[in-house]
Amino acid sequence: MLRQVSSQENTAALVERLRAFLGERCTTSVSEREHHGRGESYHPVRAPDAVCYPLSTEEVAGIVRLCAEHDVPVIAFGAGTSLEGHLAALKGGISIDMRRMDQVLAVHAEDLDATVQAGVTRKQLNAHLRDTGLFFAIDPGADATLGGMAATRASGTAAVRYGTMRENVVSLTVVMADGRIVKTASRARKSSAGYDLTRLFVGSEGTLGIITEVTVRLHGQPEAVRAAICTFPDVASTVRTAIETVQCGVPVGRMEFLDAAAIRAVNRHSGLSLAEAPTLFFEFAGSLAAIAGETETVAEIARGNGAQGWSFADGAEERARLWHARHEFHYAMLALRPGATAWATDACVPVSALAACIEAACREAADAPFPAAAVGHVGDGNFHMSYVIDTGDPAEVARAERLNAALVKRALEAGGTCTGEHGVGYGKARYLVAEHGAEAVDVMRLLKSALDPQNILNPGKVLPAADEG
Amino acid sequence: MLRQVSSQENTAALVERLRAFLGERCTTSVSEREHHGRGESYHPVRAPDAVCYPLSTEEVAGIVRLCAEHDVPVIAFGAGTSLEGHLAALKGGISIDMRRMDQVLAVHAEDLDATVQAGVTRKQLNAHLRDTGLFFAIDPGADATLGGMAATRASGTAAVRYGTMRENVVSLTVVMADGRIVKTASRARKSSAGYDLTRLFVGSEGTLGIITEVTVRLHGQPEAVRAAICTFPDVASTVRTAIETVQCGVPVGRMEFLDAAAIRAVNRHSGLSLAEAPTLFFEFAGSLAAIAGETETVAEIARGNGAQGWSFADGAEERARLWHARHEFHYAMLALRPGATAWATDACVPVSALAACIEAACREAADAPFPAAAVGHVGDGNFHMSYVIDTGDPAEVARAERLNAALVKRALEAGGTCTGEHGVGYGKARYLVAEHGAEAVDVMRLLKSALDPQNILNPGKVLPAADEG
Repeated sequence: MLRQVSSQENTAALVERLRAFLGERCTTSVSEREHHGRGESYHPVRAPDAVCYPLSTEEVAGIVRLCAEHDVPVIAFGAGTSLEGHLAALKGGISIDMRRMDQVLAVHAEDLDATVQAGVTRKQLNAHLRDTGLFFAIDPGADATLGGMAATRASGTAAVRYGTMRENVVSLTVVMADGRIVKTASRARKSSAGYDLTRLFVGSEGTLGIITEVTVRLHGQPEAVRAAICTFPDVASTVRTAIETVQCGVPVGRMEFLDAAAIRAVNRHSGLSLAEAPTLFFEFAGSLAAIAGETETVAEIARGNGAQGWSFADGAEERARLWHARHEFHYAMLALRPGATAWATDACVPVSALAACIEAACREAADAPFPAAAVGHVGDGNFHMSYVIDTGDPAEVARAERLNAALVKRALEAGGTCTGEHGVGYGKARYLVAEHGAEAVDVMRLLKSALDPQNILNPGKVLPAADEG
Repeated sequence: MLRQVSSQENTAALVERLRAFLGERCTTSVSEREHHGRGESYHPVRAPDAVCYPLSTEEVAGIVRLCAEHDVPVIAFGAGTSLEGHLAALKGGISIDMRRMDQVLAVHAEDLDATVQAGVTRKQLNAHLRDTGLFFAIDPGADATLGGMAATRASGTAAVRYGTMRENVVSLTVVMADGRIVKTASRARKSSAGYDLTRLFVGSEGTLGIITEVTVRLHGQPEAVRAAICTFPDVASTVRTAIETVQCGVPVGRMEFLDAAAIRAVNRHSGLSLAEAPTLFFEFAGSLAAIAGETETVAEIARGNGAQGWSFADGAEERARLWHARHEFHYAMLALRPGATAWATDACVPVSALAACIEAACREAADAPFPAAAVGHVGDGNFHMSYVIDTGDPAEVARAERLNAALVKRALEAGGTCTGEHGVGYGKARYLVAEHGAEAVDVMRLLKSALDPQNILNPGKVLPAADEG
């Protein structure tokens, strides 16, 4: 008869084997564990039992095989910037920190692609590419790892022109739940050779496999870049300008919405003095002639929608200052209320419904007892409300929850999604059935069971628990 | 004790139930069945046992439920233009012809999307959109149905600018193997809400579910369009021009390669008198200013690679004539040898390897006893050899098979794919393991088993049989 092993004993035995395998690159230090059980949002820390630092795909496979033998969860960790509780060890388990897998493995300049280990960050890759005339375009703000960005289908301010990770991942190397190593695709720019495994793993948040290498598309550095700012009388005219710009096929590099409250926060945090009104930040990129034409077209559209006060930033430094301010929005909001936490919503809707959705969200948050502001990747129909709450105050958390639920409900009614780019984690799992329908979520469950029958890969994420939704 | 029912009796009983369900929209006429058991390539006819013509998603679901009850295969049929035996009823079964599901269900001009029934063809959709200023961009040449294009991840001449069906499908309605109806996604332009079911079904060739409705992205009609032709001293300089054009970020609308033999065939078939040399067909699209700039940039690149004889086609009629000639290439080749069949290869490689792959393929075909020529969507690294063979002559078939096998082997060694846009069907299934590795193909098998445990959805397609690869 087999001796019954307690869960604690089982985990301890696993950690011992991981130590034998990885030496000091497996740790149970409390601070390390806590760091690996949190992202950057309101979700409470749920620390894993141990943290491993592999150096290669083969080591990740070894870790996963040991976890599978012990039936213990594994959670991949990139830069720790996720926002929906992706990293919470809801059932304990082993965190696999990918940051030491930081090698750029190949740059194929002629083919416009690069292959990196999953722990390479987007800024690191772009620094590596500096002398090639090429760059990696996706910019979620945070200096996330490429593996994390692929796993959460990240996008950000440049998606209006270059798409999201869905469009920019060429191929992945993935460790499956049983430790097998799979290459999802060739380096061909397009293929119709079987099921699209690449897109299956992009956005699967470590629940179907662990991404260890990423091949991404690169783009040529534009000849010139120009930023512009323009303010509007109201949200509707701001969004209308964005819609008309997209409809005219102007390939803007970026097109970001900030409401008056967001501009106020950014002004204070970054020492700017922008007019506190609904605003669009533009970036134009291309040949000088193309930029001139595009600027003119967009200025005309904006004027038609009552725009005031165009201003341009042509110098690299001035542009960097502007976009830095936009990217610091999250921290600008936090600075309004030291010690508080920023809850970022993430609805994405067909653009025709965007203005109404943003206006309703702002109206509902107007009398909240905490700071709130709206920003948006408005060309894609994606916007974020930031609620700066005291997570120790249940009333504030409940209010933010109600605001988010109302905003999600409205987005789904408009034919949109509860999460444009932050992913599901466990924070949004409750909305999955409302968005996709029970049948589609059942199909997702079939995929999960087929690829991870033990449910050891980031359990409790993406798919709602039986009592949710 | 249950009476044993023969396969024939079982199918007959199913057909009787389908007749009761659909009346005359279920037929067993020999000519209908034979028409539905062939595509447009060299694969022999394998007729289904009956053909059904549903009018709605619910009717498709009803047909699939009946087939599942009787454990009989179902094969979706669009325009019948597939090239790798996708439609062959290898194990008999029911063909579901989608052509009467031909309704454009919604056009959302502001959101740049449209939802259609799967039997709507791309030309039909574009005719419907004529007055909106918008168009559907993917152009595989054939007037395929949108459902068929999604199912095979089609692309074609416009993919260099607009991407493939992978990038242009927003959402699908799919009937699963048990008759359940699944909507794969919202209409949001981007989402990170769970597994990418849309991309899972795009390219699955009716083996994971039957696509009944398709929501696609639309694009704004460009202000102006200009075509140009340019000839080169050899294949390498032609391809180099295409690579440099892509690297410079010139957003060409189309950029097509034809070798001297292809030009000869096209000249003869379409009454043109183009110089019989390696050639690029270009299309530029955008504002007049942008087109002027792009033309100049590309002309300079081409000159640097030894180009001769630029000529332009600015008028709509002249342009249409040129592109019609390109699109008629398949028929131009057939016209070289009346009664013969055109076998189209479909490798796609990283562009740095493209010239060598095309040159080797042409060299190997030079002494073949049948006409052969090369064309390519050269900005994507995708090229097709056309072998015009007598399928009644086993020696010719064997030679074409050997040529294709060598070409595929070379493409895979270069990091490419055996099929850029034609799909797998059963013609390419034998190459899937060589391209993806046994582990990745095993993952595909797990997906297939999870979603179609009875193996009734287009069996024998995409995944290799146990004795292949």
